[in-house]
Amino acid sequence: MPQREDAVALDAADPLASFRDEFALSPSPATYADGNSLGPPPLGVRARLAATVEEWTNDLTGAWKRWVDLPLEVGDRLGATCLGAAAGQVVVCDSTSVNLFKAVNAAIDGCDATRHEIVVAADEFPTDRYMLQSIAAQREMTYVMADSAAAAADACGPSTAVIVLSAVNYRSGELCDVPAVTARVHAAGAEVVWDLSHAVGVIPIELDAWDVRLAVGCTYKYLNGGPGAPAFLYVARDHQTRLQQPLWGWFGQRDQFEMGAQYEPAAGIRSWMAGTPNIIGTVLVDEGIGIVARAGIAAIRAKSEQLVALAIDLADELLAPRGWTVVTPRNPASRGGHLAIARADARNVCATLIDKALVIPDFRTPDVLRLGFSPLMTRFVDVYDAVAAVATI
Amino acid sequence: MPQREDAVALDAADPLASFRDEFALSPSPATYADGNSLGPPPLGVRARLAATVEEWTNDLTGAWKRWVDLPLEVGDRLGATCLGAAAGQVVVCDSTSVNLFKAVNAAIDGCDATRHEIVVAADEFPTDRYMLQSIAAQREMTYVMADSAAAAADACGPSTAVIVLSAVNYRSGELCDVPAVTARVHAAGAEVVWDLSHAVGVIPIELDAWDVRLAVGCTYKYLNGGPGAPAFLYVARDHQTRLQQPLWGWFGQRDQFEMGAQYEPAAGIRSWMAGTPNIIGTVLVDEGIGIVARAGIAAIRAKSEQLVALAIDLADELLAPRGWTVVTPRNPASRGGHLAIARADARNVCATLIDKALVIPDFRTPDVLRLGFSPLMTRFVDVYDAVAAVATI
Repeated sequence: MPQREDAVALDAADPLASFRDEFALSPSPATYADGNSLGPPPLGVRARLAATVEEWTNDLTGAWKRWVDLPLEVGDRLGATCLGAAAGQVVVCDSTSVNLFKAVNAAIDGCDATRHEIVVAADEFPTDRYMLQSIAAQREMTYVMADSAAAAADACGPSTAVIVLSAVNYRSGELCDVPAVTARVHAAGAEVVWDLSHAVGVIPIELDAWDVRLAVGCTYKYLNGGPGAPAFLYVARDHQTRLQQPLWGWFGQRDQFEMGAQYEPAAGIRSWMAGTPNIIGTVLVDEGIGIVARAGIAAIRAKSEQLVALAIDLADELLAPRGWTVVTPRNPASRGGHLAIARADARNVCATLIDKALVIPDFRTPDVLRLGFSPLMTRFVDVYDAVAAVATI
Repeated sequence: MPQREDAVALDAADPLASFRDEFALSPSPATYADGNSLGPPPLGVRARLAATVEEWTNDLTGAWKRWVDLPLEVGDRLGATCLGAAAGQVVVCDSTSVNLFKAVNAAIDGCDATRHEIVVAADEFPTDRYMLQSIAAQREMTYVMADSAAAAADACGPSTAVIVLSAVNYRSGELCDVPAVTARVHAAGAEVVWDLSHAVGVIPIELDAWDVRLAVGCTYKYLNGGPGAPAFLYVARDHQTRLQQPLWGWFGQRDQFEMGAQYEPAAGIRSWMAGTPNIIGTVLVDEGIGIVARAGIAAIRAKSEQLVALAIDLADELLAPRGWTVVTPRNPASRGGHLAIARADARNVCATLIDKALVIPDFRTPDVLRLGFSPLMTRFVDVYDAVAAVATI
């Protein structure tokens, strides 16, 4: 069984170890294992906030000359750094939920009207399911809930308009084969909208190469963009004319400041904006992306695989005898950046770990404890300490 | 004609004069007359940002225990300070455009299905018109564009589902009689969604007393919440059960963290949230509201009336002989916080004023120059200097 000194040795050899110094870390003695839910602030956040307030102070409305393009510029950087997306296909704005609403409606409008099914997995993230239920109700379509992501993909057929899938499942940490599933859904004549919230910044993603057409995701987990930071939306260039989103706002309008009578979508990804984008939030997303860019997704993924592997080894030794089940897939190629373990009393264990300031994990109903490892700041000793602490409860 | 020393005397007697010291002001020599578009940062913004980053650093996901209610708490403060709304009816989240989408769809769903018309004025703010065009297209309804707000209200009849109106027109500055128009629309069996973007923070608003049911607005103008700050949404308590918004997200879900299979709206205004709200943006909105609360809307409105009255007097003397027309109504009770003047070359005049660092106004097609006066920081000498500068071009 790995010992704590083994974890210390792994930290000493970690090429990403110095990135931990780029974050403001909590003085709490608890091991933070929830960076998959909310990443900590990059140290650079303070300077970026100060610079943005200075821009706001000095240039006032004049700063909008630059800000108007910021959601696209930060989108391009996110695309290049984390999504395998060439420029002009990603915008950072609104929430993941709102962007999902745009993408799903666009997908449905892009399909033959005889396709009346919206498909989702029962264990898809709640906001995705609720948004699809709403769209199904509004459009009088059939909401199809499958038992799993695999079953959902299999359920796509001649009646399916769109399926929403997560690249990494928020509970189990299971990683989907995005290009294979995308090809299968497209072969069935349906559209797939990928939710990359639990994958972006920790998993290599190649949206262009994988022939993905529509994807959304959040920026406050492994990208450390801050609580409720603006989300992102990817629309493949070849489909930007065919697909149109339903939230027509002035930031998506061609010749925005001509304020013409009729809505005419701007060219390209700009038309996927709606209202005025939050500038301070967008700047902080950019700061988070910058750190990921310097570390490189390949190195982040390599460390992430090691972190989860260590966690699983420790769970097998320390937690399995105490009745815990490892939910996360054992094949490293089939999992994301967090470990999910299950026991009937997981809710109470989670509360106790937090109350005793041992670990900050999170709980997902009915019985899952998630331990999230963010390679830019989680150390191997943190993994050791977190799993060892769970074993004490 | 008022002289500059008269303006200086008005400043000396201004009970709100000291509030100017609570804002970070641009070092530019130009007179800022665009606070109706983007207000400057309150000085308190830096401390609020630092405190929020500290909360993010120290408490991480634990801070969500408090943050989850912040959009409602700030909404309540906005309601009490600026909207005449009792607690539990206002939420601060998303953009004005997205909130408009929620409110208009809820209004339509709340009407008899035989009502197929969506009504708007031709000079309504662009994002409002575009959003209504989109909704009309999606729902196969009739988009009715009237010549003016008055004509739009008159057009409401047995076929009308919903009308969107601004309390203060973004171009002319004309102030609508909100309670009278609301009563007229309701009497016609239709719903009205008020856009308060150009009114909130400068005009006394009494949504509860005025029997308004649905309203939206932005927070970055007279409320000084920052570029693209989260917007607000008001739903009258008596209509919160009857009306349901169409963007079902996890922040609007009852028992959010139970993550149940079916969407069940939370009780009250909380169900009007969708995705994860931007926390830093919401905190800054609160800072802006705090200053307005201390100044008081009555005092703000009194000064605003004086500022615009001085501007009109000066425009009559200095600008009318140079071919400018005052577009803003002359009756103080019929106008908001900005002055609109028109001349065929207004676009060029606006550019020249900015290039020469004389005044920062803004231009609205085809021929309107707007001079916005924000009572918390605009001085009477600023009004004098701004109008005098326009006269030099």
